[in-house]
Amino acid sequence: MSNQSYIQENRDRFLDELMQWLRIPSISSDPGSKEQMVRAAEYLKQRFLEQGVDKADIYPTAGHPIVYAEKITDPSKPTVLVYGHYDVQPPDPLDLWDSPPFEPVIKTTPIHPEGAIFARGACDDKGQVYMHVKALEIMAKNGDFPCNLKFMIEGEEEVGSVNLGKFCEEHKEMLKSDVILISDTSIIDNKTPSICTGLRGLSYVEVEVTGANRDLHSGVYGGAVANPINVLSDMIAALHDENNHITIPGFYDDVQELSRQERDAMAKAPFSLEAYEKDLDIDAVYGEKDYTTLERASIRPTLDVNGIWGGYIGVGAKTVLPSKAFAKISMRLVPDQSSGKITKMFADYFTSLAPKGVRVKVTPHHGGEPVVTPTDSVEYQAAALAMKDTFGVEPIPQRSGGSIPIVALFESVLGVKSVLMGFGLDSDVIHSPNEHYGTFNFFKGIETILRFYPHYAELKK
Amino acid sequence: MSNQSYIQENRDRFLDELMQWLRIPSISSDPGSKEQMVRAAEYLKQRFLEQGVDKADIYPTAGHPIVYAEKITDPSKPTVLVYGHYDVQPPDPLDLWDSPPFEPVIKTTPIHPEGAIFARGACDDKGQVYMHVKALEIMAKNGDFPCNLKFMIEGEEEVGSVNLGKFCEEHKEMLKSDVILISDTSIIDNKTPSICTGLRGLSYVEVEVTGANRDLHSGVYGGAVANPINVLSDMIAALHDENNHITIPGFYDDVQELSRQERDAMAKAPFSLEAYEKDLDIDAVYGEKDYTTLERASIRPTLDVNGIWGGYIGVGAKTVLPSKAFAKISMRLVPDQSSGKITKMFADYFTSLAPKGVRVKVTPHHGGEPVVTPTDSVEYQAAALAMKDTFGVEPIPQRSGGSIPIVALFESVLGVKSVLMGFGLDSDVIHSPNEHYGTFNFFKGIETILRFYPHYAELKK
Repeated sequence: MSNQSYIQENRDRFLDELMQWLRIPSISSDPGSKEQMVRAAEYLKQRFLEQGVDKADIYPTAGHPIVYAEKITDPSKPTVLVYGHYDVQPPDPLDLWDSPPFEPVIKTTPIHPEGAIFARGACDDKGQVYMHVKALEIMAKNGDFPCNLKFMIEGEEEVGSVNLGKFCEEHKEMLKSDVILISDTSIIDNKTPSICTGLRGLSYVEVEVTGANRDLHSGVYGGAVANPINVLSDMIAALHDENNHITIPGFYDDVQELSRQERDAMAKAPFSLEAYEKDLDIDAVYGEKDYTTLERASIRPTLDVNGIWGGYIGVGAKTVLPSKAFAKISMRLVPDQSSGKITKMFADYFTSLAPKGVRVKVTPHHGGEPVVTPTDSVEYQAAALAMKDTFGVEPIPQRSGGSIPIVALFESVLGVKSVLMGFGLDSDVIHSPNEHYGTFNFFKGIETILRFYPHYAELKK
Repeated sequence: MSNQSYIQENRDRFLDELMQWLRIPSISSDPGSKEQMVRAAEYLKQRFLEQGVDKADIYPTAGHPIVYAEKITDPSKPTVLVYGHYDVQPPDPLDLWDSPPFEPVIKTTPIHPEGAIFARGACDDKGQVYMHVKALEIMAKNGDFPCNLKFMIEGEEEVGSVNLGKFCEEHKEMLKSDVILISDTSIIDNKTPSICTGLRGLSYVEVEVTGANRDLHSGVYGGAVANPINVLSDMIAALHDENNHITIPGFYDDVQELSRQERDAMAKAPFSLEAYEKDLDIDAVYGEKDYTTLERASIRPTLDVNGIWGGYIGVGAKTVLPSKAFAKISMRLVPDQSSGKITKMFADYFTSLAPKGVRVKVTPHHGGEPVVTPTDSVEYQAAALAMKDTFGVEPIPQRSGGSIPIVALFESVLGVKSVLMGFGLDSDVIHSPNEHYGTFNFFKGIETILRFYPHYAELKK
């Protein structure tokens, strides 16, 4: 039976298994989710064991556990380490979901006429990890493993992979491999495959501005005492200039400027500004002067407030002058910016913006380094051939705006390069309400992964 | 028995009755509080009936009910209408209360060595209203009513007294009086009585900034699409210039500038900047250039953000670029600014600040007009004599930064002036966690109210 026929025959079971996994709310940032995280890890371990792997174990960490499995068939074959994550983003705001985030349903959409699974984690990253589990099932059924396989699926990607570095340090021998294969990125559209060749890094901080030692009545004190919300707004506003450049001194010092030629090549990617604006229902895009939308979202660093709160946010009116105001602020970084350096620059500059009458606290959350991967490597070529086999067209190399901080870590700790062969679409709204993953993409992913291994083994010879 | 001995003898009962009332969470802005509001109104009505009033009724409104009671002893005597409110501010943030907001306890503080009742509404305004109920009890016991008495205690002061105007229009005859007596303001300190001669007006709006039609992943879209939080921060920052002047065109056009002489008189009020900063634990005050702290908090208009929210505000990090951001913004107004005019000016200007790529909605909440009351009126003189009787020193006329919008309404609808004889302290932290009201102030208030009526009747002759 061909792989395609087998997939066709087992289609519903594959989806059912994934949906069972999606029902487990493995929200890594939720302090109350420990038990659900273990359930999600356990579920995955069992699915690996069903495929006859040599081993499948759950490794505890200081945070959430890591699932590791391997199938070594021949020491002379190249070894591929598949990385992914089973943790998901919080589903808030819940009221914007059309169906509950942890009760997956399959519905068709204009972009996914064959149907898409709607659930938190459907695309990011349980759905993409599960393609690898099912590709493994097919290889096992065929008794044909072109490469040795290792799987490392963590539970803390959405909170900065805080314990994965240590795990890699401590299990270098076990994790030894020729390349790391990651499916946690997007393709341009279902007719235009692409391979991610760059990821932005990340600095994420939380800031707190404190005025008086207690909430005050805005009638009695208003106008006479610093209002932390007004001050925080002023400070946030001061982080960009009128051209939407970031004002932090030295922020752009290490930014790799692309050549005119590289930018011209980027501009050839299929992109309709009109469709983009229509999809988002906005009358204009907004960003750094002298750069295109695609450039702003990939090769340029950014600074966004991801959350802000302070004072009275209930129904109706309360005339309070609050004691504190807070914001979560993230910066996306590009080569050769360093997350640690940028976080420090931010903290110093932000603190310097505070007027007298308030105190400022900056708390770094997680960070990650930007990466760029070459297109002339064996792994890129193998992924490109695999995609050409299944999509019928050459994939386009594309730098992505998102961050998978772990890629830079793998390079420094394990000394191994990664190839970012993901199958999501930007319109799958990962991190947002109604996240989904096309069944077309899920099955196309399985087929493509199955093609990757023989190409990689062949090119490695 | 003297009034003072009677108060001393019934001290614990008076406090118990007030604390029972404080246990009812009459939060007017809470849509779920309808039943509690009725309970609080009913409780008050019963206490009026116990004093042998001619009538005590609960008048329904489109919102929360109004309690009205009267005791008419002689048509030839002057009639005083006591106004107050039984609704309270929401208690948020709950975790900053040392004891639950609706479980009143009496504790001593450095400022209140004789004890203070800690509860939401203890000072604003149930505690101050209840002084009038107990003064009534004493007049009834003595069978001595120097004035005819009317009481109108509403349940919507904290949400803009939205239905009181209509009630006044419809009950002009019933509410007919010579003066309105209100205890909902502060004195300078327990040795320095003062009478409020001016209140700031209020414009209160809610603003909403919308970017894309859904929450976005900040890695994929960050830098390329307007972030409503960043934009809202920019817009808020633009509402003040570097001298902390409000930038809304025309905002100051109708502001009454005080003469140098008037400002010099104000500057003589006892005020220690050092103590003020120490009390609030701030290293500097903050406000409009060229004005003192007392001026900023009373004779100058202000603009404060009372609440802000948007994006992810839970524990940990979420890299979301939100669809919407919100703020609640209030402006305190001074004579002769008009709330309606300022609200419109704000809406026009704020909307004009929005860049392309976002949409802005401005929703007006309640407003109120600023007022100034003369010090040469019969009612001011009667209040001043009453305070001199009980405190032993002349009270200081003082303009307050807060707003009681209803004072301007009374003047326009009922054609009656108000006298603002309140007994709170600014340090009682009304609207904040740990609101309290000194028992000294409560009992001193009862005594002073009992002195007000004979002085008023005498001066009116």
